[in-house]
Formats: sequence, structure tokens, C-alpha cells
Amino acid sequence: MAISETTPRSPCVFSNVLDIIGDRWTLLIVRDLFFFGKHEYKEFLSSPESIATNILASRLQKLACAGIIGEIPHPENKSRKLYFLTERGKDLLPMLIEMAKWGEKHLPETEVMKPLFDVIRRNPIAFQRKVIKDLMAWEKDNLST
Amino acid sequence: MAISETTPRSPCVFSNVLDIIGDRWTLLIVRDLFFFGKHEYKEFLSSPESIATNILASRLQKLACAGIIGEIPHPENKSRKLYFLTERGKDLLPMLIEMAKWGEKHLPETEVMKPLFDVIRRNPIAFQRKVIKDLMAWEKDNLST
Repeated sequence: MAISETTPRSPCVFSNVLDIIGDRWTLLIVRDLFFFGKHEYKEFLSSPESIATNILASRLQKLACAGIIGEIPHPENKSRKLYFLTERGKDLLPMLIEMAKWGEKHLPETEVMKPLFDVIRRNPIAFQRKVIKDLMAWEKDNLST
Repeated sequence: MAISETTPRSPCVFSNVLDIIGDRWTLLIVRDLFFFGKHEYKEFLSSPESIATNILASRLQKLACAGIIGEIPHPENKSRKLYFLTERGKDLLPMLIEMAKWGEKHLPETEVMKPLFDVIRRNPIAFQRKVIKDLMAWEKDNLST
């Protein structure tokens, strides 16, 4: 069921947004799709947060129902799937950037994230453009028929 | 324990941010503090999402531990408390604005939120300034000794 077909549970847009993405695991999958070039079930499983298989499956389904991700059969093996951010999903990027900026300011910075933050700090607009460009390059290789 | 004293669980800043705020109820309390002038336990309970008392208590504690909110005894009744956003908490505003913008674009708009969105759309920077100004006016009345 697409979001537009559902009735909002709350009169507040924040609440309705949080019904969809107000969950740690959901946004970690979105992060993997945006910043780590991950598109497969087993790739999400290998992230450092060790998501459980049942949670991963339920969150991928939730993201697909909400129209945030799409899926196609893997070209090399039809039993596998490739997941990708839809236009609605890509529109989450500014929110994730603000989340990262808050984290950078208020949480102890970890070495592994330093290069990413150096890039965001230098030119946040260019960073957003590069993320979207990389996603489009992947789509051109994988989604065009 | 303040955030800065904890060891991050993940090498990724997104994950560490989501450990703190990646929860629907947590962000609904933050929303109430920012946009609805709520500062008391019973006021959070009266929000349309009907948060349960045990969840509200645990999330207020989590937000205080993370340094996002502070609390003082209520001037009229010492057994009650007044909660407020700290500077670290106020820094979450740009993320909430991006969340609202995404919701406005992709979720069915509800009438009750229309006036708020008209203001955000007309001038998002002025809207942010007004929210912070309102919070500071409340602080001046309630936190100054």
C-alpha cells in the first residue's frame, strides 16, 4: 500500500513522518543506500551494527511500502534482489545531512567518519550533488533496460 | 552520564545519532518542546499520539542523559518538573525542519498543519528564528533566577 493511500494516524506531519522513518534500523538501511553503495540484502547484513535478518526483512518491506525504496531482481541471480532509493527516498538526503551535522557537533567524532565530514564541511551542497550523482550512475548501470 | 563520556557503539556517526534520537517517541517529545510550547509531563501526555506514561518517563530520562533536555522543579509545585531544550537540543531544529519538509512533500497534508507549513514555506529561516526566540522568551520567564 502506498503512503498516499493510507490515512494519517495523527494530525501532525512530524508524527506521520516518524511512523515511517522514526526507527533506528530503517534509517540505517537508508544510510547504507545513500553513502555506502549498498544495494543487496547481504550487504545490509554486513554493516557494523549487525542488523538481525528478521528486522532487515521487515524494514525493507516497510521502506518499499512507503515508496522510499524500489527493488528489481538481481541480473545475475533472479532469487536475489537489488534495492535502490526512489525519488521520494532521495529526498531524505537533506534530513540525513542535518542529522550528521548534529552528530558531528555533539557526539565524539570517530576516526572512520573523519574523511566524510571533511568533505561535508568543505562544501555541503557539492557533497549532496555527488551522493545523488553516484546513485544515478548506479541506476544507469542497473535499472535501465 | 553525558554523551561525551560514553563510548560510541558504532564507528558511524549516523548510527550513534540514531542510538539517541532514532525513536518515534523521543522525537515527538522534542517536537512538543519546539513547536507546541509544552514543558510539563502532563502536557506531553495530552498530545494526540497518546504516549504511554512508562514510555514518556523513559524517553524524558534518555533525553536528559543525552543532554538534549534539562529540567527544573516547577515554581508552583516542587513535585512537578519543567522540561526545556538545552543548546544541544535546540541544534536539532534544522533536522526537524527537513523532516517536516519531506513530510509536506510526500505525505498527505492534514488541515491542522497547513498554517504551520504556510509559514515555513514563506520563510524557513524566519520560522527557525521565531521558534528559537519563543523558546528563549520562555527560558527568560522560567529559568532565570
